[in-house]
Order: sequence, then C-alpha cells, then structure tokens
Amino acid sequence: MKTIRIINGPNLNLLGRREPTVYGNASFGEYLDTLRTRYPQCLIHYSQSNIEGELINMIHEAGFGNTYAGIILNAGAYTHTSIALYDAINAVETPVVEVHISNVHSREPFRHTSMISAACTGVILGFGTDSYRLAVEAILHADATETDI
Amino acid sequence: MKTIRIINGPNLNLLGRREPTVYGNASFGEYLDTLRTRYPQCLIHYSQSNIEGELINMIHEAGFGNTYAGIILNAGAYTHTSIALYDAINAVETPVVEVHISNVHSREPFRHTSMISAACTGVILGFGTDSYRLAVEAILHADATETDI
Amino acid sequence: MKTIRIINGPNLNLLGRREPTVYGNASFGEYLDTLRTRYPQCLIHYSQSNIEGELINMIHEAGFGNTYAGIILNAGAYTHTSIALYDAINAVETPVVEVHISNVHSREPFRHTSMISAACTGVILGFGTDSYRLAVEAILHADATETDI
Amino acid sequence: MKTIRIINGPNLNLLGRREPTVYGNASFGEYLDTLRTRYPQCLIHYSQSNIEGELINMIHEAGFGNTYAGIILNAGAYTHTSIALYDAINAVETPVVEVHISNVHSREPFRHTSMISAACTGVILGFGTDSYRLAVEAILHADATETDI
Amino acid sequence: MKTIRIINGPNLNLLGRREPTVYGNASFGEYLDTLRTRYPQCLIHYSQSNIEGELINMIHEAGFGNTYAGIILNAGAYTHTSIALYDAINAVETPVVEVHISNVHSREPFRHTSMISAACTGVILGFGTDSYRLAVEAILHADATETDI
Amino acid sequence: MKTIRIINGPNLNLLGRREPTVYGNASFGEYLDTLRTRYPQCLIHYSQSNIEGELINMIHEAGFGNTYAGIILNAGAYTHTSIALYDAINAVETPVVEVHISNVHSREPFRHTSMISAACTGVILGFGTDSYRLAVEAILHADATETDI
Amino acid sequence: MKTIRIINGPNLNLLGRREPTVYGNASFGEYLDTLRTRYPQCLIHYSQSNIEGELINMIHEAGFGNTYAGIILNAGAYTHTSIALYDAINAVETPVVEVHISNVHSREPFRHTSMISAACTGVILGFGTDSYRLAVEAILHADATETDI
Amino acid sequence: MKTIRIINGPNLNLLGRREPTVYGNASFGEYLDTLRTRYPQCLIHYSQSNIEGELINMIHEAGFGNTYAGIILNAGAYTHTSIALYDAINAVETPVVEVHISNVHSREPFRHTSMISAACTGVILGFGTDSYRLAVEAILHADATETDI
Amino acid sequence: MKTIRIINGPNLNLLGRREPTVYGNASFGEYLDTLRTRYPQCLIHYSQSNIEGELINMIHEAGFGNTYAGIILNAGAYTHTSIALYDAINAVETPVVEVHISNVHSREPFRHTSMISAACTGVILGFGTDSYRLAVEAILHADATETDI
Amino acid sequence: MKTIRIINGPNLNLLGRREPTVYGNASFGEYLDTLRTRYPQCLIHYSQSNIEGELINMIHEAGFGNTYAGIILNAGAYTHTSIALYDAINAVETPVVEVHISNVHSREPFRHTSMISAACTGVILGFGTDSYRLAVEAILHADATETDI
Amino acid sequence: MKTIRIINGPNLNLLGRREPTVYGNASFGEYLDTLRTRYPQCLIHYSQSNIEGELINMIHEAGFGNTYAGIILNAGAYTHTSIALYDAINAVETPVVEVHISNVHSREPFRHTSMISAACTGVILGFGTDSYRLAVEAILHADATETDI
Amino acid sequence: MKTIRIINGPNLNLLGRREPTVYGNASFGEYLDTLRTRYPQCLIHYSQSNIEGELINMIHEAGFGNTYAGIILNAGAYTHTSIALYDAINAVETPVVEVHISNVHSREPFRHTSMISAACTGVILGFGTDSYRLAVEAILHADATETDI
Repeated sequence: MKTIRIINGPNLNLLGRREPTVYGNASFGEYLDTLRTRYPQCLIHYSQSNIEGELINMIHEAGFGNTYAGIILNAGAYTHTSIALYDAINAVETPVVEVHISNVHSREPFRHTSMISAACTGVILGFGTDSYRLAVEAILHADATETDI
Repeated sequence: MKTIRIINGPNLNLLGRREPTVYGNASFGEYLDTLRTRYPQCLIHYSQSNIEGELINMIHEAGFGNTYAGIILNAGAYTHTSIALYDAINAVETPVVEVHISNVHSREPFRHTSMISAACTGVILGFGTDSYRLAVEAILHADATETDI
Repeated sequence: MKTIRIINGPNLNLLGRREPTVYGNASFGEYLDTLRTRYPQCLIHYSQSNIEGELINMIHEAGFGNTYAGIILNAGAYTHTSIALYDAINAVETPVVEVHISNVHSREPFRHTSMISAACTGVILGFGTDSYRLAVEAILHADATETDI
Repeated sequence: MKTIRIINGPNLNLLGRREPTVYGNASFGEYLDTLRTRYPQCLIHYSQSNIEGELINMIHEAGFGNTYAGIILNAGAYTHTSIALYDAINAVETPVVEVHISNVHSREPFRHTSMISAACTGVILGFGTDSYRLAVEAILHADATETDI
Repeated sequence: MKTIRIINGPNLNLLGRREPTVYGNASFGEYLDTLRTRYPQCLIHYSQSNIEGELINMIHEAGFGNTYAGIILNAGAYTHTSIALYDAINAVETPVVEVHISNVHSREPFRHTSMISAACTGVILGFGTDSYRLAVEAILHADATETDI
Repeated sequence: MKTIRIINGPNLNLLGRREPTVYGNASFGEYLDTLRTRYPQCLIHYSQSNIEGELINMIHEAGFGNTYAGIILNAGAYTHTSIALYDAINAVETPVVEVHISNVHSREPFRHTSMISAACTGVILGFGTDSYRLAVEAILHADATETDI
Repeated sequence: MKTIRIINGPNLNLLGRREPTVYGNASFGEYLDTLRTRYPQCLIHYSQSNIEGELINMIHEAGFGNTYAGIILNAGAYTHTSIALYDAINAVETPVVEVHISNVHSREPFRHTSMISAACTGVILGFGTDSYRLAVEAILHADATETDI
Repeated sequence: MKTIRIINGPNLNLLGRREPTVYGNASFGEYLDTLRTRYPQCLIHYSQSNIEGELINMIHEAGFGNTYAGIILNAGAYTHTSIALYDAINAVETPVVEVHISNVHSREPFRHTSMISAACTGVILGFGTDSYRLAVEAILHADATETDI
Repeated sequence: MKTIRIINGPNLNLLGRREPTVYGNASFGEYLDTLRTRYPQCLIHYSQSNIEGELINMIHEAGFGNTYAGIILNAGAYTHTSIALYDAINAVETPVVEVHISNVHSREPFRHTSMISAACTGVILGFGTDSYRLAVEAILHADATETDI
Repeated sequence: MKTIRIINGPNLNLLGRREPTVYGNASFGEYLDTLRTRYPQCLIHYSQSNIEGELINMIHEAGFGNTYAGIILNAGAYTHTSIALYDAINAVETPVVEVHISNVHSREPFRHTSMISAACTGVILGFGTDSYRLAVEAILHADATETDI
Repeated sequence: MKTIRIINGPNLNLLGRREPTVYGNASFGEYLDTLRTRYPQCLIHYSQSNIEGELINMIHEAGFGNTYAGIILNAGAYTHTSIALYDAINAVETPVVEVHISNVHSREPFRHTSMISAACTGVILGFGTDSYRLAVEAILHADATETDI
Repeated sequence: MKTIRIINGPNLNLLGRREPTVYGNASFGEYLDTLRTRYPQCLIHYSQSNIEGELINMIHEAGFGNTYAGIILNAGAYTHTSIALYDAINAVETPVVEVHISNVHSREPFRHTSMISAACTGVILGFGTDSYRLAVEAILHADATETDI
C-alpha cells in the first residue's frame, strides 16, 4: 500500500475563510476526507506551515527512503520567490508534484513565475481542489506503470 | 456519453521521431489507442496542425455548442507567443485544458512563459503523455460533480 | 468609382459571438451592409482569415496595381507580434489604414504595442465598428484632395 | 447645433513654421477655416497652450455640463509622459478623442507610447491635419446614432 | 500659534466631482472647514494649481523663513514624474510631508513610484482625506517634542 | 474600549542597538510605554518575530473576529519581498496599516518597493517612531467616524 | 549527385518588387537559374510560403531520410519570433543553413535577434543573393570532406 | 553687435540659496554682471521660469529671426524628462547650447540622461557657473569663423 | 583563546546526501572535526537552520559582545534574496565572512547575485569545504595583525 | 592578383590547444596552408593579436588604399563588446567580413549579440574553419561581378 | 607658464580621413597648430593611442605632480564602456575634462552613456574640434581664478 | 617547491597612491615582500599590466605546462566587462583564483558583476591585501591534499 505526502504552504490553513471567490468555501480538512475516501488504495499524510524553512524540513523528512511514493506540494506564495525550496526539492529523492488551486496565470503578474517548477516532476494548476486529486492520480499511475512518474 | 477534443500544435506530428529523450519513442497515434481503451466512457476526437491559424479554426469549431465537454490543447511552441490563440480560447464557451508532455520550466527560458494559460481552465505539464490522461480525468470529473471544471 | 479592401484577422469571424461587451452583438456581415449603403460612391471588398500567412497573401494581392484605393486592415492579435505583416505592408504600394474596434490601450498591456503601425499610413481605434467607416472616410478624402492619404 | 472643442498642446502654435516636411506648410488657423466651412452643422471652439497645466484647465472647463459634444485633443509631446492629463481626461464627462497629425509610430521610440490613450474614447493618427476632421466625423456620428461615441 | 501650508496639485480642484468611488463626494473646501475646526491651535493656508511650475513657486514661497511649520503636499500625478518638484523640496528649508488620499499602491503600476518621497520628511497615504489630518498631527507633534518632525 | 495590535518584523527587536543614526536610541519597549500613556482610551498589544511565517501566523490570529480594531504592521525587510505576507493581509478582515520608522524612499533602491502596500488600508512612513502613533490616530479616527478606516 | 533544398519564407515571393534598394531588382526565379547553372554538380529544389506552419511542413518533409544533403532556409520575418521553426529545425536530421539577403544587423533592432540560429548548422547573411550561393558552397564542401557540415 | 539669450529653468531662481555645496553661494544675477563685464562685445538677455511651458514660449520667441546669435539653455530638472522642450529646440532656427552648473553624471542616476541634448548644438556641464561663459565663447567663436556654431 | 561561530543555512544539513557531484560526499560534521583538529588555537561553534528568521536570531545572538571573533556564514539559497539577513549583518558588531562551497557564479543565473555580500567583511567561494578553512584563516589573521579583519 | 587580409582576435592564437571540442585540433597555421593551396588565385595575409587596440591598428593599416580586396575579421570575444572596433570598421574603406568558427548563437547568451555586425558587409558563422573559406569566396565573387561585395 | 595635456583615444588618429561628414576634413595635427597659435600663454602636449591600457598609462603619467594644469581627454568609443578609464581618472590628481567632437547624444543609443563623465571635472561636446578649445578655456580660467577648475 | 603566479590588472600599479581609504597606503611591492617571507615554501612570480590583451598573454604564458601550481588574478576593472579574459581563463589548464582587495559588492553597482568568476576555481574578496595570502593558502592546500584546488 502506497503512501503520499501532501505539504501545504503559507495561508493555506485559511482555506474556506480566505478569498472564497478564489479558493472556495470548504476547509482543506473537509476536502482531505473526500480525497481519502475516493482513493482507499493509498495513505495520504498531510502537513501545513506558514514558515518557509519548515516546509524545507518537511520535504527533507519525506524526501529520502521508501516511505513516500510522492510529495504533492502547494508552496503558496513561496512558489514565486523561494530558491531554498527549489534546492530542497532538487536535493531529495522522492518525486514532487507542484499544485495550485487557482489558475495563477490569470492573477497578478508576480504569480506567473515559479521558482520551483523546474525541480518538480510536473505541475497541475487551476482545477480548484481537484488539482490535488489529479496529482494523486499522477503519482499512482506512475507506480502502476513502473515509471519514475 | 461525453466527447473530448484533443488538439495538438506544431511539431507534435513528429512524436516518436523528434528528440526521443524528451518526448519518448511512441507516436501520438499509439498513445491515443491506449487512452481510448482506458476511458471507454468517453469519445476522444483528435486533430493536429502546424499552422497557428488552423489551430484557431479548430478551437472555434469545437468551442461552441454542446458537442464537446472540453478541449485538451497542447499548443506546442505557439504556447509561448500566440496572443491570437489566447483570444480564441477566451472567445469560445467550451473549457480548455492546457497540457505539455515535458516540464517546460526545466527547459529553455523562452518556454517558461505561456501566453494562453490565463485563458485556460487549468494547466497540466511534465508527466509525459500521461499529461493528456490527467486532462481527461479533469474534464470527466468536472462533469461528474456538476461544476464548470 | 473607387474600390476599397477590408481585411480582417484572427477571431474577427466570431464578431457578434465573442465577448459581446467588448465587440458588440452584430456580426461583421451585418455591419458591412450598413457601410456599403452609406457609401454608395465606392465598392468595398472583404476577406477574413485566422492564418497570418493568408493575411500576407491578401495584402500582396491587393497591394499592387490600381485596383484598390486603400486597404483597411484589422490584424487582430497579430497586430502585436507580426514582423511579417509589417514587412508585407511596407512591401506593397497601396496605402494601408490600421483599425481596431476596441480601444486596445485600455486593455491588457500586450495589446498596447503594434508591430505594424509604423508601416501604415494612419491608425484609427476605439470607435467600435465606426472605426471602419472613419477609415473609409480617410481613404475617400485622400482621393478627393489628390494627396497620398 | 452641436459644439466641439479642439485643444492643441505644446509647439502646435508653430504649425506651418516647424518641421514642414513632417507637419506641412499651413498654419492651424488656416486649416480651422476649411474645417468649419466643411462642417456648418457644428460649432468648433479652439484653444492652444504650451503649458501642461493649462491644458488640464481647458479639459476641466470643457469637460462638464452639456456645452461640448466632444473634445478633440492633440496633446503633442505631453502625450507620452503626462499622467496628469490622463487623470484629467478620466475625471471629466465629455468624451475625448486623441489625435496626432503625424504617424507617431514611425518616428522616435519615445513617441510610440501614449499615457493618455487608455482614458480617451478613441485615437486617430497619421492622416495629417485630416486627423482632426475624422475626429469631428467620429463625434458627429456618435451623436447621430445615440451611442456614447 | 503655528501655521501650516497645504498645497494641492493637478486635478485635486475637482475633488467631489472626479471619480467619487476613489476620492469621495465632498469638495476639498468642505473638508478644509472640518480640519480647521478640529485643530484650532494652528492656522492652515491652502492653495492649489494644475501647473507643475506654479507648485514649485508655492513651495519656494512657503519654504524659507519661519512662516510655516510645515508643508503638506499632495502633488497628484506629478508625484510620479517630477524631478523638478523633487529639486524644489530639497532646496527649501521647511519640512514637507507627502500625502495621498487613495492608496496609490493598489492602483495602476505607474502610481507605485514617487519621484518626491526621498526629499520629503515622511509619507502618509491611503486614509482618504484623513491623510491630511494625520499630516497635521505629524507636524504639530514634531513641534511639541522639539524634533525636526 | 478598542484594542490595537502592533506587529514588528525582522531586526526590530534590535531597536536602540541597531544603526542608531537611522533608528534612534530608544528601545521599542520604552516607546510603547509612552504610546500607551498618551492613548489611555485604547489597549495596545505587541508582538515581534524575525521569522516571516510567524508574522503570518500573528496576522491570522489577529485578523478575524472583533478582537482588534486594527493591526499596525512594520514588516521590516520582508516588506520588500514577501508575497506571502501580502496574501495574509488580503486574507484577513481586520484593517492593516503599514508603517516604517525611516523614510525608506531615501535609502537603498531595494527598499523603495513594497509588496504589501496594496493590501493595506494605508501607509505611514518616515516620522521615526511617531509613525506608530499616527497609525493609532488613523485607526481610532476611523472608529470615531464610522468609516472603514 | 547531391540535392539541396532552398526554403524561402514570408514576403520573399515579392523579390524584385519589394524594396529594391534593399533586396535588388531580380526575382528569385531568375537568380535560381544562375545558381543552377553555376553548380551543375548538384540539384536544387525550391519552395516558398508566407505561412509559418507550411514552412514547418516543408522542413519536416525535407528533414528526414537521405533525399537532401542540406536545407537552405531564409525564414524572413519569422526568423525573429518563431519558436515553432526552431523546434522544427531541431527535430529534423538534415542540416539547415540560415541565410539572409540583407545585413539584418544594420536594420531595425527587432531584426537583430534570431530565434532559429541556435538550431542551425551555420548562418550566412548580408551578401545579397550571393548568401544562397555561399550556403550551397558550405553544404557541398561538407560533403567533400566527410564532415557533418 | 551680437545678442545672446540665456534661459534658466526650474529652481535656478534659488541660486545662492539652494544646496550651496552643489551650486555655490552667488545668485545668478551677480554672476550675470560679471559675465556681461567680461564680454562687452555682446549683449546678454536673461529670463527664468519654473514652468515648462513658459520655457517653451521663451524658446519660440527667441528662436526665429535674427535677434539672437544663440540660446544658452539650462533646463534644470526638465532636462531629463521633457520631450516638449526637445520638440521646441528642434522647431526653432537659433542654435541652442545646453549647459549645467554641476556635473550631472556624478549625481543621481535619473540626472544621467538628457531628453534635449540630441536637439542642441552642443553640451557643456560641470564647470560651475563658468559653464555659461564657455557657452558664450562657443557662440561667439562660431560667429567669428562663419560656421554654424 | 578565540572563538569563531559557523552558521549554515537552508539545505546544508543535507551535506553528503545532496547533489554529491556539487557538494562532495562528506557530512559537515565530519568536516568540522578535521577543521577543529587543524586549528587547535581557536574554538569553533556551529549551528544550522533551514529557517531564515532563525538564522537572523543566531546572528543577533553571536553578533554583540566579545564572545566571537568572527562569524562565518553560509546562508545557502537565502544569500540571493534576503534583505532581512542583510539588515541583521549590518546591525551586529561582530564581523561576518560570507562563504560558499561551490562556485555560485558557474551555476544558475539566480545564484550570481548576493543580497548580503555588501554587509559582510569579505567573501570566499568555490573552494569546496576548504572555503570555511580560508574564512577561519582570515579571521585569525585579522586578530594577529590587530586590524578589523 | 587579389590580396585578402585575415585578422584574428583574442585567444585565437590558442587554436588547436583551446577547447578542442568547440574549435577542433588543428592550429590556424595549418589551416592557412590548406586555404592558400586551394585558392592560388589570391594572396592571403594573416595577423593576430590579443590586444583590442592592435586589432584597430591592423584594420586601419589594411583599410585604406588598394592593397586589400577585403578583410576577414574574427574579433573573438571583442565581437560582443567593442564599440571601438565598430568605429574602426566604419572608418575604413576596405569591406570587412565578420566570421566565427563556432555557432555563437548556440553558446552563452553574451555571445549572441555582436557590436560589429552592423558595420561589416556580411557575417558567416558556425561552419568551423570553413567559415574563413566561405569569406574568401564571398570576397572573390564580389570582385568577379564588379559589385561592392 | 601652464602646460595642458591632450589625450585622444581610439580611431581619432584617422581624423580627416574617417567619416568626414561627422568629423570634418582637417587632421588633428593641423587643428593642434591653430590651437597652439591662439593660446601662446600655455604649452599643449599631445598623445594618442588605440589601446585602452595605454590611455590609462598616459593618464597615470600625466596625473600626478605639477607638470599639467589639466588633462583634456577624448576617450572615443572607450568612453561608453571603460570602467578601467573611470578608475584611472578617479585615481589621479590632475583634473580631467571630457570632450567629444560630435554631439554623441544625436547618434546611436550606445553613445548616449558615458562611463567616465562622473569622474571628470566637466564635459564639453558637440562643438566640432572647438570642443578642445573650450576645454583649454575652462582649464586656463580655473587657473586664473584660483579655483579648482 | 611550488611556484605561484600573481597577475594584477589596470590601475593596480598605483597601489599606495590611489584612493588610500579604499586600497591602503602600502605599495604592492612592499606587500609582496611580506608575503614571500611568510611563505618560504613556495616561489611567487609577479606581473602587472594596464592592457587587457597583455593580461591575456600573461595567462596564456602561465596557463600551460607544469610551471605554475596556480594563478592569482586581480583583473581590476576588466573583471566586470571582459569576455576575452573569461575565454583565456577557460582556455588554459592552470587553475585561476580571482581576488579583489576591496569588497566590490559594497561599491558602485557596475562592480557587482564579474564576467570571469564562472571560469575561475574560486573567488576571495574584501580582506584587503590579505585576499592574496588567502589565495596562496588555497593553492598550497589544494596541492597538499592532492585535490584540484
């Protein structure tokens, strides 16, 4: 049975409270329940932090060994500025999938660039919280076909 | 039964012949067979052109009415320069999902910007040809939950 | 009796269907009828294409000899990127008037620059479809005063 | 009977004396006589200043109430730098049409951008002094069709 | 008894008429009455001009000698472009406080830079007309504590 | 009785020790005593952190509910780079006033831009520690006049 | 006997009619006769299109197999903007030599950059139509010395 | 006997009062007396304004006819931003010499560019008020040798 | 006996595991043993954090008083973006030497700029872990010659 | 019998020793022998220097009079920065052909721009040392057809 | 009796041969004779080099001691790029006056910036060879009035 | 016994005379004596030139064979502009260490970038002349541990 790690970055603890026209009304905890129900064939671990360095710690912790089949990372606003996260993703062995809830390309220009995409396996953005499910699909499918994702 | 339109842009007719270390050895036709087999619950129409304006024509044709539940667009190199494609996607009613086979953010800098992302519903990139399958998932799932994708 | 050529570029075939708050509800065909009725003293030929190179072909065809007193060109989104259209306008003898339906300067930044204005005789933009009529006025008036437009 | 206000900016008092290969040999006064003769159905008021703030004063004065059906503004070199004129045009109620005698896009690069276009109804440039006549046409036509110009 | 000079720049004479959603409905004269009532312990002199050079003249006039304890300057759109105002503020002895009614940083990008801030004592922006009152507070308080503001 | 939250960012714990010619000799604790004495009509809560993510946590904590009438935020050097703080301020309901002790516009160029100003109600800078008092004034005054600040 | 393919891009069908001071008076057909006469030891195939995507089609068609020893490509104005042509040249096996008739570096700045040079074997420009002959020399010589061009 | 016109721009009326370490202690009037005494063979007319448009008026007035052998223009801070002054200098017939008291290139970066230099005959800067005398020399010498300056 | 503080930033806890071709195979702990053995004449304290603000805390703690003769700081990826670290280094009294293991200038462009170099005494980079030893040399030598480093 | 001058710039004296994968194994002297043997109908003079100013001297010396039919210049790294070489090429009468051994456009970005191309007759690059032979061809052919090259 | 050193940079040895419409027909030697005749009260030493480093040597040699009252430097094209010349001028004690024959601001954009102006006492440009005479005037006059130039 | 080559660039011959607050009072010759005394286990050869191409010659001469264990290069102002030096360092086999006396990052912006760092083994800057000693340490230590530096 495979395990997947979801790591959420700054302000995503406010999901359901913050800018509901952009991010929707449900909290991430509620969404997580739905996701786990739909994919009983895998375990999903979750953590969140508003602190850039703690996200790095989480990636280090989940990034080595065989514990996790993949990391799903929504780095929030650090996506656009953090070379340190880019280094952390490059340094670990577990593949990382970058996700965003909103279509960042239709928002402010400073959200159009990502410092971390080049270090990730792939990017999924714009499908609301369904972006997380598609990332789970991508990790499970890679496993099924013996590819590297 | 839902129908999905896949539209491929310039040089994607060479899939399987062009830069196999980046794009893999299989032709798109072979991949399409696999995809159709896996998702018998939908029809998948396919077309390709190297001509920017013909891609616009295809989007116009597929973009109005109820024929298609969604368009999956890999605009190839026009992704990075075409305001006309951006206008076409904005003009039509059918939701459009942008996909890329490779992780464009780990390639040349001129592939890091997309003129069309802001007009699309969402973006999926970097998972090899599995990017197309994830886009099918996104469109089908939107249908299941009565959302707009 | 003078003849004028109107050439419309990408997505303008959708006029009346596309973003009606920006472009209005009438199709271009309906507008063309009104225009021809108002200016019985001239013939107005019309063509449209979504393909950049076909617009170049149209300009070549209309640009030499005495057939046309002037070309009215709405190059749509190619306005902002096409050096090839700029070269085509420079290459031909017939004067070309650049028009836009909307005020491109109050829209996205990438619509604020025009690659082709420097090769055109003049520019008229922002008056809705009346921009085309004013271009007809400019061409007819040039004829009346024996100037070069 | 409708009234139109023409406001000319810096150095345009030299028309007929300054760079005749660019601007022609006739003074603006002479041109104004021709224009008034051709459009007896409207009154045309005229003023000019080399001082940016006085142009703002003129726009304020003509911009409220029902006195003027439209303002035709050639802001000269202030076109390219004046945020204050942009604010003034935005602040008033009377529609403003931006005109230029020469094709500013085929001259020095610093004339290719306009600070004020986004606040104007439309732009007409490159037709010599006929640019003013086309602006009169645009204002009168708006009136005739009950549109907002 | 201390005297304070308020100097308003271009288009601020339209306060109450211009973009009321941004600037409110009250004229500056009405606001001035309220302000003088609230701070009976000081005199407030007021002047406005749309002409950049006249603002410089006003700063020169108020900037030397002991007449004024401070100048409150809302340079309007000249804020973003005027090196000459920067020089004038640097040249005089009276401290100058820069104010803006709206939060210029949440408006167009060209309003995000100020040519004059570096020459001013401090900046207050975004509190509606209350920005002026806070500037009065700042000048009076500096006086009370014998600091330089 | 109203409550106000002051949040100080990186290096501001050194106030009184760090660059005294720029920031003065008094510690922030000493200043806070003076401020509380002067404004007995309100409560002032204070916290500081050098960690960007902890500042976000503080804003989240103070930003919902009716506990605070306003937040006074001096984000220090994170002002110029933090999109995550911008997101946090946008996400909460309590109005935030940005303050700086020094006139950041007369220092190094990288201090001239603020990532967070557009999300704040207003900005006050350059008045030494008096900037904090003016922010208190702004929050109290908003309360008195029933405006939103 | 070796075969060489010459592919000409937009507006080059006008050679002899367009800007004769830049491009000369002879048509490309006349020049082709001279070239074939001078190099009887090789066959020269020729095609031209104004449509970017058709140029890509031509490169695909000539770019695989042993038919052609080399492609001589004058991409005209698409040289400066087309990532799709760059991808096509990279994708095929036949070596491509980029040529220009004029010295593009002594013309407008937008002609100083080439999107396609990095994918070509070499570049020859500025020698009038003799640039094509030098490209033929380069291809034939590569053949003679068993190098890859 | 030749006549020379000196035109001074914004803030130069403060000479002797403003930043004496940069501009010296003498007023311009005092300097003018010395200059007239040293060059009895010519008349020197003087005017100053802080208003950009009045400087344009002065240049217009002095720029046609045979009254003046040359204009010496210190445009102050308008030097760096005014396209309108550039147009005025280009429009008149009298040669204009640009002068600056300080070495603008060793001051702030925004003083390193001049909008007007390209329209002037020559530039002299950095020699204190002696820059004006060297400009007088340049104009007189041009006259003596029958050159155009 | 002198004491030196080494502070390592983000991802440097992975030394020996992360990108061994760039950073080598030894962990930092192993290297530290070697370094302490070689320099028995000094004490070397060590700490590491992935959190930007904790690095600031460490610098504050080590930066005042006579405990440390110098700080050796490898700020990792925060080197290129952190104004807050720059402020912290400027604020403390202990001299700080910036080191990097790899030659950052031969890696990605975003590693070519350092926000903190200007606040440090000196920079040593590119010598592998020997960069730390050279920094120890620099601090000890400064002590020997009574200079300020 | 015609004479041609080849001038090589910095580091080209190392040919055969420097980066053989880029520049090949043969020294330039060896290549020169081959070239002279192949073109007995012309004399080829050769010189090299690492000093920018000596290259200017060589161009001056070869650039006037009828000694040389053309100069073949490989300016090496000075190609990308030297305005002085550009001036020298512009100043002399002999036509200059710019050559490069490697395809500079597929190397580092700072090699993609040339300061000197605009002053040269034409450019040939990317064909290895055969670039020199093609330049000889270009010069000889120009002579044969009585054109100016 | 005072001595002045004139130092000319690259390509100025061609004066009279190079681009006569820009630089005139007389050689610099002829001009020097005229200049020495007109100013018998001073000695004028002259040297020229095309080599940047030799210009530095000349400035070093003339820049210390009391031999020269001033250096007149026309650094030609090195003006726009040479930090090393800027350092040399800053390093020496003798004042340096920058001169140019042509008005560099009305030529190509890369001639509009000067790396060396900030280190010079003053700048004189655009008066033909009379620029050198005005520099002599500036140096002599400084001497006469006991100022530092 | 190992030999080290020190190569100094432009203006470093003035050490002790030039800007003593930046570079100190001792000449480089005096410093060299101290350095040689401290490191009797190696030979230190020294040369200096103000001419860019001569520095290239020195690097070529010292860069091949086994004569030198390392080159210590202070390229002065050429550091920031010279691609030719970058090529020379890349071309030779001997490792090169870049040094600077001052902390270039706390001086003018144009000194913050280095064209040559990417080609050097490592960089040491800001320790005064002790930067050279640390470079000697780096080279000797590399030798002792049989690494490549």
